[in-house]
Amino acid sequence: MAVYTDVSFEDLHKLLADFDVGSPRSFKGIAEGVENSNFHLQTDKGGYILTLYEKRVHAEDLPFFLGLMEHLATHGIACPQPVHNKSGASWFELNGRPAALLTFLDGVSLRRPEVSHCGLAGEALANLHAAGKGFSLTRANALSVAGWKTLAAATLDKADDVQAGIAELIGDTLEECAAWPSGLPSGIIHADLFPDNVLFVDQKISGLIDFYFACDDAFAYDIAVMLNAWCFEPDGAYNITKGQNFLAAYGQKRKLQADEIESLPMLCRGAALRFMLTRLYDWLNPDPTALVRPKDPRDFAKRLRFHRKVRNASEYGL
Amino acid sequence: MAVYTDVSFEDLHKLLADFDVGSPRSFKGIAEGVENSNFHLQTDKGGYILTLYEKRVHAEDLPFFLGLMEHLATHGIACPQPVHNKSGASWFELNGRPAALLTFLDGVSLRRPEVSHCGLAGEALANLHAAGKGFSLTRANALSVAGWKTLAAATLDKADDVQAGIAELIGDTLEECAAWPSGLPSGIIHADLFPDNVLFVDQKISGLIDFYFACDDAFAYDIAVMLNAWCFEPDGAYNITKGQNFLAAYGQKRKLQADEIESLPMLCRGAALRFMLTRLYDWLNPDPTALVRPKDPRDFAKRLRFHRKVRNASEYGL
Repeated sequence: MAVYTDVSFEDLHKLLADFDVGSPRSFKGIAEGVENSNFHLQTDKGGYILTLYEKRVHAEDLPFFLGLMEHLATHGIACPQPVHNKSGASWFELNGRPAALLTFLDGVSLRRPEVSHCGLAGEALANLHAAGKGFSLTRANALSVAGWKTLAAATLDKADDVQAGIAELIGDTLEECAAWPSGLPSGIIHADLFPDNVLFVDQKISGLIDFYFACDDAFAYDIAVMLNAWCFEPDGAYNITKGQNFLAAYGQKRKLQADEIESLPMLCRGAALRFMLTRLYDWLNPDPTALVRPKDPRDFAKRLRFHRKVRNASEYGL
Repeated sequence: MAVYTDVSFEDLHKLLADFDVGSPRSFKGIAEGVENSNFHLQTDKGGYILTLYEKRVHAEDLPFFLGLMEHLATHGIACPQPVHNKSGASWFELNGRPAALLTFLDGVSLRRPEVSHCGLAGEALANLHAAGKGFSLTRANALSVAGWKTLAAATLDKADDVQAGIAELIGDTLEECAAWPSGLPSGIIHADLFPDNVLFVDQKISGLIDFYFACDDAFAYDIAVMLNAWCFEPDGAYNITKGQNFLAAYGQKRKLQADEIESLPMLCRGAALRFMLTRLYDWLNPDPTALVRPKDPRDFAKRLRFHRKVRNASEYGL
């Protein structure tokens, strides 16, 4: 929800000389994405998003992110496509930031997805996991156990100011992560497929967006992220009907292995910890230049406490 | 550049049941407008802006603002049009805010308008002044001399912290305002027609937006606002060629009277004071919930110092 780096129409006009995207009809900063500055460009040829990558997305990762979106599209996933400039480049520098021009995708994201939407989201995730196969580049998950330890070290001493007991919750969960599963079926995961990043048109998924946390990791971890993101009610209660629909739809496309099923509670704890920690860090270190309100880490503390009581995957609706 | 009040797709969906605007294809908060929360809605029938009016725009003024936009459109001015709901209302309440759904206008605003654009803007202002005639509602200019005195009282003691000498500049200019001209040709003025609020497509003006400071006042004061807003260079120098083009184009449509010409330097000082004071107030009283960076009041202190040296309107290029 932010435009950190300003782009004037004059800047855009100069930029578009390098592209074959038609003549601009409107150009507006959009209040979307915590990480980057985004602008909606409408030309007589179509709609585009101009993204300037701010500090958390590094230029050296752009070939992975942008290449992945192209790879996925050729394998049937509707997602934004980088527009190449006349020299063939898919990214460039604009106002001191790495930047890309992407095709605009129709659709709206839901704030309160219902049971049927969770099913569609599960199917979409399985399709994404299948489509990622064969992509030639790799990227480690920077926000897995080692990354959580770094975040924990940076937040532990003030964590209990946010909510009593969070520091202990972090410590205990990280200790359990000594048994973090390895060797599960892996490949390209989205790693952040929250409802904001799934677009719907007329009750069908029209596309997936925001691949800037995508990486190589266990498919089941992506499932755990989505159980956290899609299947809890606003009051923090787990909705097992949503979980059942999500998991059944995923399983129709790819049957989960026994080790994935067994690991699911641990993976769900890890995923809840990951979002709790990044939110906690942003909460404790508010960026004075930020144009977004930090998200409340306590929502994921509540989810994490739930997951710590789960004994096996059937409690998620499997 | 802000979305202060959140509107989910679910909120929108419920709202659209009252309208006949088609089925949503995309819905995004836009980083535009300091005063209100704005969302761009694209449906299969067209583009719309959903505006939620925040604290500075009051519900009781909406019949004036929205009615004015309709009046102007019927008199040839391209501007957003409120879409009436099935009960005929042009505004409604949404998430605790007065709100309206307006037609989307193609066009981009310029950051650094050139001489030719200033001419087009002068012509557009004269057309706006002519088109406002016959509008049945009236609204006093809340940001004229009396309003400036209130703002001055609220900022004077800290003004010099922003720049040495500003307090004296305010005091001296307000004293001169004892001779603020009255009886000049008056009618509907925009009162805030900065380059942000003039849209261009292919070097022609495609529309005017943001009528939320519109009121009844002297036409020449609107000219003074635009000389301040369009005819200074980024380094603060007055560009007389831009002024000449702007004034000549306006004069082609409506010849200025002798008293308007004589008053122009005073009106320009007043206009510079008005924008300096509102920016100064926002600078000194930053809203912790604001999602925009306050604008620098010193830009208009510089303009005001220039106007205080101007002896007659010819120095503006008349």
